[in-house]
Parts: sequence; structure tokens; C-alpha cells
Amino acid sequence: MENELVAQFRKVLPASEKLLIGPGDDAAVLRTSNADTVLTVDMLTDGVDFIVGETDPRLIGRKALAVNLSDLAAMAALPHSVLVAVVLPQDGGEQLAVDLLDGMLPLANEFDIAIAGGDTNAWDGKLAVSITAIGQVSPFGVIRRSGARPGDRILCTGSLGGSIFSRQFLFQPRIREALYLNEHYKIHAAMDISDGLLLDLSRMADESGLGFQIDESKIPVHPDVLKYKDLLNQSDPNPNRDPLPPVLRKSLRKKFKDQNPESREFQIDRALSDGEDFELILAAAPEETKRLLNDQPFADQGLILSEIGFFQEERNSFRKGLDGTIRPLAGTLGFVHRFK
Amino acid sequence: MENELVAQFRKVLPASEKLLIGPGDDAAVLRTSNADTVLTVDMLTDGVDFIVGETDPRLIGRKALAVNLSDLAAMAALPHSVLVAVVLPQDGGEQLAVDLLDGMLPLANEFDIAIAGGDTNAWDGKLAVSITAIGQVSPFGVIRRSGARPGDRILCTGSLGGSIFSRQFLFQPRIREALYLNEHYKIHAAMDISDGLLLDLSRMADESGLGFQIDESKIPVHPDVLKYKDLLNQSDPNPNRDPLPPVLRKSLRKKFKDQNPESREFQIDRALSDGEDFELILAAAPEETKRLLNDQPFADQGLILSEIGFFQEERNSFRKGLDGTIRPLAGTLGFVHRFK
Repeated sequence: MENELVAQFRKVLPASEKLLIGPGDDAAVLRTSNADTVLTVDMLTDGVDFIVGETDPRLIGRKALAVNLSDLAAMAALPHSVLVAVVLPQDGGEQLAVDLLDGMLPLANEFDIAIAGGDTNAWDGKLAVSITAIGQVSPFGVIRRSGARPGDRILCTGSLGGSIFSRQFLFQPRIREALYLNEHYKIHAAMDISDGLLLDLSRMADESGLGFQIDESKIPVHPDVLKYKDLLNQSDPNPNRDPLPPVLRKSLRKKFKDQNPESREFQIDRALSDGEDFELILAAAPEETKRLLNDQPFADQGLILSEIGFFQEERNSFRKGLDGTIRPLAGTLGFVHRFK
Repeated sequence: MENELVAQFRKVLPASEKLLIGPGDDAAVLRTSNADTVLTVDMLTDGVDFIVGETDPRLIGRKALAVNLSDLAAMAALPHSVLVAVVLPQDGGEQLAVDLLDGMLPLANEFDIAIAGGDTNAWDGKLAVSITAIGQVSPFGVIRRSGARPGDRILCTGSLGGSIFSRQFLFQPRIREALYLNEHYKIHAAMDISDGLLLDLSRMADESGLGFQIDESKIPVHPDVLKYKDLLNQSDPNPNRDPLPPVLRKSLRKKFKDQNPESREFQIDRALSDGEDFELILAAAPEETKRLLNDQPFADQGLILSEIGFFQEERNSFRKGLDGTIRPLAGTLGFVHRFK
């Protein structure tokens, strides 16, 4: 760990009752007696999850933390602490590290999460940020992604699609919602949407040994999807209205050049496949789903639960189109890392 | 996470009683009730900690795990589980991931450590491996690096220097030794040597609010230091005798070109500054040090404890040379990450 940078961080990081030993020793020691531990790691990299030089580094820091908190939410775990490991480009890396941390602190504070330590490295490569989040099993247990049962309804929080314009950096991890749902309802399975609703839902179905059918007419499309219209129609970028990095604008225009952003089909496809919504997908029995939809426990915060389909014993999965036709899922469902 | 690769890993990873939920869900759940948690992360990167294409990837995997276990050892923590996050080069990344894991498994098995999950990414950059190790506080507590007291003797396990030739990849994390010492002796402070004895000792002294004096005549020099002689004298590389990557051979020859590898001074400097020994530095009161040196509890395994100096109230630190002269520490003491 780079000494001066670490010394700087130790001044900035708030003390926490959760830390028996914080940053500065060979390891952190966390006050965690009497509960099992939930542990997750996500590594975010330049050019894949953000673009250094075109994305505000504080947004990068916030996102790196938020995606991990979203994983804890997907388990309905009580968040505790995080460790932050970075490898920084030699050129400008020190300021980058300071800004990354600056972007994490408000979110860490909001969820009372201790930044317990980390590892700071430099190299002649690009920025990679690896955050480990540790949580504790609540008195109500965790929710697995493998617990869906045949006939369970599929629900999701919030609305989907168009996250690339800003929500990929500014989304709220659904920690409070997951804890509340786990305490007050019988949720059979849960997962967060990182790589796209269809792809993540197919993973949840696989883990549960099931297939599913999704009803396109019920998908809650986020208003951000309308921003594709501006993006695809507009020949001159307007950075004030649309803060997308130029390189991303270009690649999105190329990707969607033959599509009509005003069509309902396009909009639903974006909601199904864009990913980085970090909303929750849930499985619950039909009766419990009715109760959830009736209660809408988060309506006062503007967050709606939607029923969007169901799980089935039949392992193949289907989408029911706006015209009522049912087609099998095919092709790439969302984001997958590519190797040569 | 890349689906096929993860599916492959899940087949390879052994089940563990320590895991309530292993790889494949949004987070792992560890059986950890009734003890506080010790948590550490280290990120290793291509070109700094290893060289992809010149280093056996299994050795890279082993090292990435071992450095984290060494941090747990430095706290005298009971090892529990690890998470492995990697960003892989797109070209050849899949095989690399398989080999990395293959290199970790024997060490994980030796210390009964569960590989609880991870994150697998690809990019157009170089390999970075970030491992998080989680341990539990033993009934005897942890040992901090900040606990040294004035007059405490400085001890180290094993011998130092020349780790670059092979021990940087093959060292044994001193977990068993640390647990034993913490149970049977009064150790005031402990730390592992990653960046060089002098640099790490100066960190330990800083954290304890002390200075130190090191006695060069007492430094246990590892026989691997003699390999510098071959390296510096030999004009033709002999890869069978000396498995150093060519690029490293070249840079070491340049770095030490004006030095005499047969001099005792050179050898001691290597022991003081090479780093990556991953032996333990310990602080103990003079009487307890006598008991430790008399007992030599690990002598039957060929591991010797040496007394190499002492801590003092005076914050400046010194080295006592072979000729008895005492000089203040100056210059670069070991490995520090560089920014432009």
C-alpha cells in the first residue's frame, strides 16, 4: 500500500463502531460476533464499467461501492463494512484515488458502512477497482436466488432500461427494501439486475431448476429509455442534456442505428436487456404476490413493485409479446464478458 | 461474472463446512457465528507482482492467495475463506483463470480455507488479481502492529533476502506459527514482511509511536541471496538453474551492476530491503524474547526465530553496521508504488 495515500485516507475515513481495528494494520478487525457472514466482491474496470477521463471519478467510486451493496441487497443481508482495492494508472493515479474515495463516502455514510481498509497499487495499466462488501445474516435469514418454485410470480422493484445515461452511476442499492421485504413477506428468491433482466432472470431460473415466462406488456419501462430517441436522432451531442461520454454515444448510435427508438418494442427490449438497473427481481407465491401488489410497501417513496411473469417447471423460457404471441428466448440476453 | 467460467469453477471448488452458501449466488454466506471478523485484501498486478507469459500462472495464483494468508498470519487470525476477483486479458484469459485457480487450490486446502466466490471480468488490459481473505479472531485475540513498547526486542521468523528468485511465489504464510506464538507467548506486535524488513519495520515503529535500532550482524540472511552472484556474474542465462523471467534478470543486473554480490554488506542489504519474504516481524519484552529464543518452538521444522534489534522511544531509527558504527536510516527502505 502506498504510504502517503494511505495516510491521507486514514485522515478522511470516519471512525466506526463497527471497526475494532480500522485501516493501517495488516488486516481490519470487524465487530461481528453472533451472526453468520455475507461476503461479496465486484471488480470494475476502465473501458468496461466506466471510462476514466470521461466519467467523473467520484461517480466511478460511488458505482464501485453501490454494485457491491446491491449484491448484499440481493441476499437481504445487513451491510457492515467494505474493503477497497485499487490498481491506479501511474499517471494521475493519486488524485484519482482521492476522488474515488470521495465518491464512496456519502453512500457509505448513508448505509452506515465502515470502510475498513484496502490496498492501493500503481501500474502502467488502466484503473481497476475491486470492492469487497461484508454483511451479516439478519434474524430473518438470507434470500437465495435458487429458491423460486414453479408457479411463483416474478416481481421487480422500480422500472428498467436506459441505465447507461446516468442510473448506472446513481442507482440506489435496494438494501432497505430487501430487508423490509424479507422481514414482512415470504420471498422465495431474490437477485439484483446487473447484466439485464432477461439474462439475470435466466440465471435465477437455472439456479432454481426452472424456466420462466415474461410478459412484455407488464414490464415497467424507465423514462430514461426515452433518452435513446435524443441520442439516435440528434446529430450534434449536447453534453448538458446528455452526459454520455462521446465514445459511448458513438458506440450506442452504431449499435442501434437500424432501430426505431420511439417503438414500444425497442423500449421494452431496452428494459429487458440494458442491465445495470440494480433493481431486485423477486419470486413469491401467487397469493403472496397479490399481497405485495396490494400493499405496495414502497409506494410512498415512489418505488413500485410490478408483477412481470412467472416461473414454471418447463426449463425453456419464453417471452409473451405485446400482441400476445409467446416466443422462446433466444440470442444474447444481456451483458457477457468476451474472450478471444 | 462470465457464466461458463464460473460454472467450471463451481465444479472444481470443493464443498466446505465453512460455507452455508458458496459460489453461484449474489454473495457467499459463511458460517462465522460467535467471533469477530478479520478482513484483508491484496491486489496483485501483471508487471509489478508477476509477469504473465514468463511466470507459471499457477505460481501467480498461489502467490495471490499466499500474500493474503500472510496478512491474516500477521494478525494471528484463524483463516476462514477467500473471495477471488480477477480482471483477465481478453486474449487467453479463460485458460489463465483456470490455471490461477489451479495454483490456489493446494494452498487453500493446506490451510482449510474455503474459496467462497469471486468475480471474473475481461478487458483489453493486463491481468490483475484481487483476493480478499476473511479470518476470525482466535480466543487469544489478534496481534496488532502498533503494540510495540520501548525496549521491546525485534524478532523475525526464518531468514531474509533473495525472495525474487523463487520464494516470492513459494513462501509459506506463517499462519500456524503466528497462532502458536499468540497462544503461548506474550507478543506485543506483529507484522509480515512484504515490502522489505526496514520499510515494514519503520511502519511498525510508526504505528507504535517508536523508533528502532537494527543490528546488521544479527540479520538472518537467506541462502537465496547467494543467487545474486550467479545472476550478476553470468552473462548467459541458464533458465534451468535460475527460473527468473528474462526481463527481471535484465533489470536486476542493471540495478545492481556496480555492486559486489559476494560482499557481506550487499547480502545484508538484500535481506534488509528485498521484501516479499513474508516472514513475521515480532515485538516482545526482553525476558519474553529470551524465552522465545531459548524455546525456538519451530526449530524442528527448520524455522528459527532471530533477535535482530530493539524498539526505542527516540523516533529516529538506526542501523548498527558490521563494524559497530550506528547510522541513521536514510533513503528508500524497500518497495513503494510510484506515481508520475
